Amino acid sequence: MAKILSGAGLRGQSAGETALCTVGKAAAGLTYRGYDIDVLADKASFEEVAYLLLYGALPNRTQLHDYEHKLMSLRSLPEELKAVLELIPKNAHPMDVMRTGCSFLGNLEPELPFDKQPSLGLHAADRLIATLPAMVVYWYRFTHDGVRINTHNAHVPSLAGHFLTMLHDVEPSELHTKVMNASLILYAEHEFNASTFTARVCASTLSDMHSCITGGIGSLRGPLHGGANEAAMDMIEPWQSADEAEAALLQKLANKEKIMGFGHAIYSERDPRNDIIKKWSKKLSDAVGDDHLYAVSERCEAVMWREKKLFCNADFFHASAYRFMGIPTKLFTPIFVCSRVTGWAAHVMEQRANNRIIRPSADYIGPDHSEWVDIDQRH
Amino acid sequence: MAKILSGAGLRGQSAGETALCTVGKAAAGLTYRGYDIDVLADKASFEEVAYLLLYGALPNRTQLHDYEHKLMSLRSLPEELKAVLELIPKNAHPMDVMRTGCSFLGNLEPELPFDKQPSLGLHAADRLIATLPAMVVYWYRFTHDGVRINTHNAHVPSLAGHFLTMLHDVEPSELHTKVMNASLILYAEHEFNASTFTARVCASTLSDMHSCITGGIGSLRGPLHGGANEAAMDMIEPWQSADEAEAALLQKLANKEKIMGFGHAIYSERDPRNDIIKKWSKKLSDAVGDDHLYAVSERCEAVMWREKKLFCNADFFHASAYRFMGIPTKLFTPIFVCSRVTGWAAHVMEQRANNRIIRPSADYIGPDHSEWVDIDQRH
Repeated sequence: MAKILSGAGLRGQSAGETALCTVGKAAAGLTYRGYDIDVLADKASFEEVAYLLLYGALPNRTQLHDYEHKLMSLRSLPEELKAVLELIPKNAHPMDVMRTGCSFLGNLEPELPFDKQPSLGLHAADRLIATLPAMVVYWYRFTHDGVRINTHNAHVPSLAGHFLTMLHDVEPSELHTKVMNASLILYAEHEFNASTFTARVCASTLSDMHSCITGGIGSLRGPLHGGANEAAMDMIEPWQSADEAEAALLQKLANKEKIMGFGHAIYSERDPRNDIIKKWSKKLSDAVGDDHLYAVSERCEAVMWREKKLFCNADFFHASAYRFMGIPTKLFTPIFVCSRVTGWAAHVMEQRANNRIIRPSADYIGPDHSEWVDIDQRH
Repeated sequence: MAKILSGAGLRGQSAGETALCTVGKAAAGLTYRGYDIDVLADKASFEEVAYLLLYGALPNRTQLHDYEHKLMSLRSLPEELKAVLELIPKNAHPMDVMRTGCSFLGNLEPELPFDKQPSLGLHAADRLIATLPAMVVYWYRFTHDGVRINTHNAHVPSLAGHFLTMLHDVEPSELHTKVMNASLILYAEHEFNASTFTARVCASTLSDMHSCITGGIGSLRGPLHGGANEAAMDMIEPWQSADEAEAALLQKLANKEKIMGFGHAIYSERDPRNDIIKKWSKKLSDAVGDDHLYAVSERCEAVMWREKKLFCNADFFHASAYRFMGIPTKLFTPIFVCSRVTGWAAHVMEQRANNRIIRPSADYIGPDHSEWVDIDQRH
């Protein structure tokens, strides 16, 4: 039964129904449409998971083939969008870039009135899944490396491989593609988190898909939501050994500093995504000959558990995993967007299918009556 | 006491506290910080109301003078933003233009980390209040008239006059300025409506002002939220007399068509904004020598009350009022944005001042457990 905790962020209050996801059921479970996250991250491709979320069931081989080719055919960025990305300065926040790119695309390719044709929403979603990685990497490479990348990559079928290829100009190893694929699956969906809820509130006015996803990006940008993996990376990056990490971390705890990448608002015992990304981080560490970053990360995990009984959430080992693949820290949260757009869009479609405008009330705490005073009498 | 109505759009559930606004208290009241909407629309300037909402009290003469000059000094659009607006096609949705313009500005002028300096948020808000009218009119005039307007207008102090001057290339009459001023006041704030709630959810992640306002624009774009005045205009525009309007409206009611501009989710007896804008619409009708549009509007009001006991909301007489001032229908909802940005920004500041991330729960209605099936075994 939901509790009423007025003014406390709607915690524990139900804001609607979903068939997409469970978070924290039986203390630890994360499922997408009933499938356990461990199974999906182990056996599925990100494209299969996107299809599952958006189209309601795992695809058969023909459906998956068609879907992969559809997404590949949608990868190119319009020239006007590239021009906009080139106008954004190098020091901009990459999440602002994605929010703007998504919004601008809505001008060029509006989701036509969708009330009688729900497939228009799915098409807009697929187009965003196919182009959001290109938007952020195109801008990044243009402003940081001075090159205009090809965003089409017809020879790289997976979105995971496509992202890494655009970033590094070479096709990734099989290991890197696998890790990125698993990472995209882990971040794809997480029930009524703040960014997804933003997208659903927007969808409840029957606004278009681009508005909903733009809103989701804006909310994920907040440091209380996305960005924990970036903060974790910033913390562990300077530490050159596990012992140095332990000493520094204990000092931070003594100073009561906030440590990012640990604990979770919903999970109480463990984050089921941590075991998966931690395993991949270890494999990457071995593959690249890392001599300290993985050890630093593991020591942090041990210290936080010993000192605070706090477990690693999905973000903590993502930091080292992404670093081992040569991904710049400022692109960590944008990758979250490239993944979560699938969950956001699935929630938008679900909201539309059984809609009532989301319009809560507020507790009024202002003055009962203010008496007008002419301007020359005001203090 | 809030009721729990799971899945029903949080209706009647409190999602937080506010000192900014009451809606529908004692069946009809609308107040901003305790001031009755009638008094504000009659006596205040929009700039005074913006100051009241954002800075907490009505300004004295010096404060108002400084605030008006601050807003005037912030009107110019950066060259890069103009370039982006020029890249947006003529047939784009004007709300998509504003959403994109707002988002893009966030790349050029990010709200720097605001946690230790709340005034940064207020400055970002003032800059958006000063530039959102210019964004939409610049795009509109460029794509529809082929001209690049001056968005500075140092000789027109009010935002109401500034908007009309940019649109028509001449300074508006005193009457038009007064009506636009009142209209901007009427639309400035309305408690936890869907777009404001979107902005607050986004703010609760501690995201930046541009993300919050961009999200608000995206939600207001939805036909269940903004846009009722446009729909009302589209309905009444073809009718050449009150009798023709009555016959056509009765036919629509018989066909069970949805009639926009009547009734309200919160107000049960009347919308306190209607009397105010209706009075201005009448004055404009007399001033322009209108021979049917006001009469058509009045007849619609009478028929809807007689047949359905539905009253005009704020939107219905806005349609004729805007038309009498020569405003194209597609700019009606953008004017709503130019006004409501003050309320959105005030809510963002209020959310930040006493924040907890807004993260509701959901009722899960999907499968308890889905068993993985290898792709070649799927149907």
